[in-house]
Amino acid sequence: MTASLLLRNVRPYAGPAVDMLIENGRITRIASGIEAPAGVAVEDGRGEIVIPGLVEAHTHLDKSLWGLPWYTNEVGPKLLDKIDNERENKKRLDIDPARQSARQSIQSSLMGSTHIRSHVDVDTEHGLWGVEGVMATRDGYRDIIDIELVAFPQSGLLRRPGTLELMDQAMKAGCEIVGGLDPCAIDRDPKGHLDAVFALCQTYGKPLDIHLHEPGEMGLFSTELIIERTRALGMKGKVTISHAFSLGAEPALVDPVIEQLAALDIAIMTTGPASRPAPPVKKLLAAGVRVCSGNDGIRDTWGPYGNADMLERAMFIGLRNNLRRDDELRLALDVCTTEGAKVMEIAGYGVAEGCNADFVILPGETVAEAIVTRSPKRRVVKRGKIVARDGVSIRTAP
Amino acid sequence: MTASLLLRNVRPYAGPAVDMLIENGRITRIASGIEAPAGVAVEDGRGEIVIPGLVEAHTHLDKSLWGLPWYTNEVGPKLLDKIDNERENKKRLDIDPARQSARQSIQSSLMGSTHIRSHVDVDTEHGLWGVEGVMATRDGYRDIIDIELVAFPQSGLLRRPGTLELMDQAMKAGCEIVGGLDPCAIDRDPKGHLDAVFALCQTYGKPLDIHLHEPGEMGLFSTELIIERTRALGMKGKVTISHAFSLGAEPALVDPVIEQLAALDIAIMTTGPASRPAPPVKKLLAAGVRVCSGNDGIRDTWGPYGNADMLERAMFIGLRNNLRRDDELRLALDVCTTEGAKVMEIAGYGVAEGCNADFVILPGETVAEAIVTRSPKRRVVKRGKIVARDGVSIRTAP
Repeated sequence: MTASLLLRNVRPYAGPAVDMLIENGRITRIASGIEAPAGVAVEDGRGEIVIPGLVEAHTHLDKSLWGLPWYTNEVGPKLLDKIDNERENKKRLDIDPARQSARQSIQSSLMGSTHIRSHVDVDTEHGLWGVEGVMATRDGYRDIIDIELVAFPQSGLLRRPGTLELMDQAMKAGCEIVGGLDPCAIDRDPKGHLDAVFALCQTYGKPLDIHLHEPGEMGLFSTELIIERTRALGMKGKVTISHAFSLGAEPALVDPVIEQLAALDIAIMTTGPASRPAPPVKKLLAAGVRVCSGNDGIRDTWGPYGNADMLERAMFIGLRNNLRRDDELRLALDVCTTEGAKVMEIAGYGVAEGCNADFVILPGETVAEAIVTRSPKRRVVKRGKIVARDGVSIRTAP
Repeated sequence: MTASLLLRNVRPYAGPAVDMLIENGRITRIASGIEAPAGVAVEDGRGEIVIPGLVEAHTHLDKSLWGLPWYTNEVGPKLLDKIDNERENKKRLDIDPARQSARQSIQSSLMGSTHIRSHVDVDTEHGLWGVEGVMATRDGYRDIIDIELVAFPQSGLLRRPGTLELMDQAMKAGCEIVGGLDPCAIDRDPKGHLDAVFALCQTYGKPLDIHLHEPGEMGLFSTELIIERTRALGMKGKVTISHAFSLGAEPALVDPVIEQLAALDIAIMTTGPASRPAPPVKKLLAAGVRVCSGNDGIRDTWGPYGNADMLERAMFIGLRNNLRRDDELRLALDVCTTEGAKVMEIAGYGVAEGCNADFVILPGETVAEAIVTRSPKRRVVKRGKIVARDGVSIRTAP
């Protein structure tokens, strides 16, 4: 085994200072005063914090406007306004999925993410253009980041004939996850929509990650339908509900649903949205529900916000859930790291001997300080190699 | 008149590139191709955006922990837990109001704020310690920022005998604004509390800026009592309600209140809080209500968040109010600039000939991009002089 990197004087999770030896892409030793093997590169950790690689568990790599001229947003207020505007203007705006996903992936990596789950649009106007583009990025940027794809019927599944067939092709092409979208509000046929996406899961033996923006009772109804199918089809631990705004409704309605989510190990993805009802993160974690997060779309035709920083997302999770105590901020970090890794079923994840050498080194006295400061002075390690320093990636954006 | 600065090639509000001539602390000319007066310093604007100085219209300069060792927050969940914890630990934690307000003021200035309204604790344990400290900073840092003080009974007014007398002394000492706090929820005597703070306003001929965290019907009741007194005492245009969470209740309850706020020109301060009901910014502005914002406490015993950046606050306002369109983001900027200036009654504010030369130069293609990017590469001009560049102030923090 060739020793590849000795990291001196770092503090995993802001604990005591140690050295970390990285060999063949793994953390092989964590101890004080490790002797440098002959010829190994030594990196001064400067007493900084080490956290595991940030997990971007929900984004849309195929359609960010990152690096394109500013897009003046004049889109209408409804969800369908945004869906239609995007589909109709994607080509005119030159939103090439291969190029744009590469740009966002580099940005994501240099901010400290080491894993991305990306929903990728599948629709009858663009076919598998998005899937092919993001797969090209996945294959071309493996040195800096791991990407998995969710085949995502952004424009609706049943309301636009031909989409289901394209979803099938997307799964054949190698998407790792089946996606779905608002079975009531968009597709107007909850039974039809859910039967279709769960059937795809069964056919390809793949998990489901469904967008559910539906609020209140409607969203809870769809959640119940998802729960029923998860149970009936033996898909415990294989379903994620993204956004799940309806879990922000009154506890009297929501608490019984949370019990079922926990029993069937259905994961929840929340961005900590400031303007919408939101899943109660602390309560979900306490109930044993896996909770992950993501930046969702960054700088796209939906909205201008975002920089792909999952530490900023941890701050948003904290602000939305009124997390102020240090132990609460640690939960926000967990959502953006270990919990995301559980949802994405990443083997060998963590900062411990034997784990993948996928981590971030960044300044701060405590984990809470690292979150609220969000220093751009980060060193990002992927597969044992430093892939970004102080906001500069080893890869150049196309 | 001595010419002091010629700024070449800047874009006010991201409009066409112009030159700006600054003389004696004022913008005297805005035009293309201004000839440099003899001996004048010339600054290359590099085609960047100019916005007026950011207005931090609600913070607590006296009690930030900025620059102190990390404070591990283990405080209880209730408002009173936070109030009592802070009062009881202020001296132990060495939160010296003079030093801490200087630190935050420098941080605020280098992020682009040119004006601050600071609430300052007045209580029977610390007397006027806070007021004296912040006044020292106000007087000592006039070159980089303007500060006005609100005498603020953080621990309650009537529930702690002796506080009202201290509030009177604080106004005598030169506080510009009378403060108040949750007349129902904290002082348990809305009539008594409001009669007392309005009486102080009458005695000293000063405006009121009252913290109102009370939610729902209770908060709306307190708001009605404030409205009644504002009308009866002829204080139209002289009252600000800070936080005003109750304005985030159902429109059926809130809309009639908004009409009265507009009629009496009562201003609203909102931080765009993600975890609480919040005043509807667009609706308030459309009704003609002045709406300002502030970072509230940054890195204090209440919570760890904040960096004193009012552009970040504009983003929070945008996220909380679901502002996505470029014209909506301009509103978020207005709240953090011109609207704040209206609330603070700043004369000569703006980016136009004749205005004070208090402004920020920062990169970006559009105003919306400036908000979502929040570049640290800002040049801050106060009284015609560049007081910060790229995050470095001309003043050194104590």
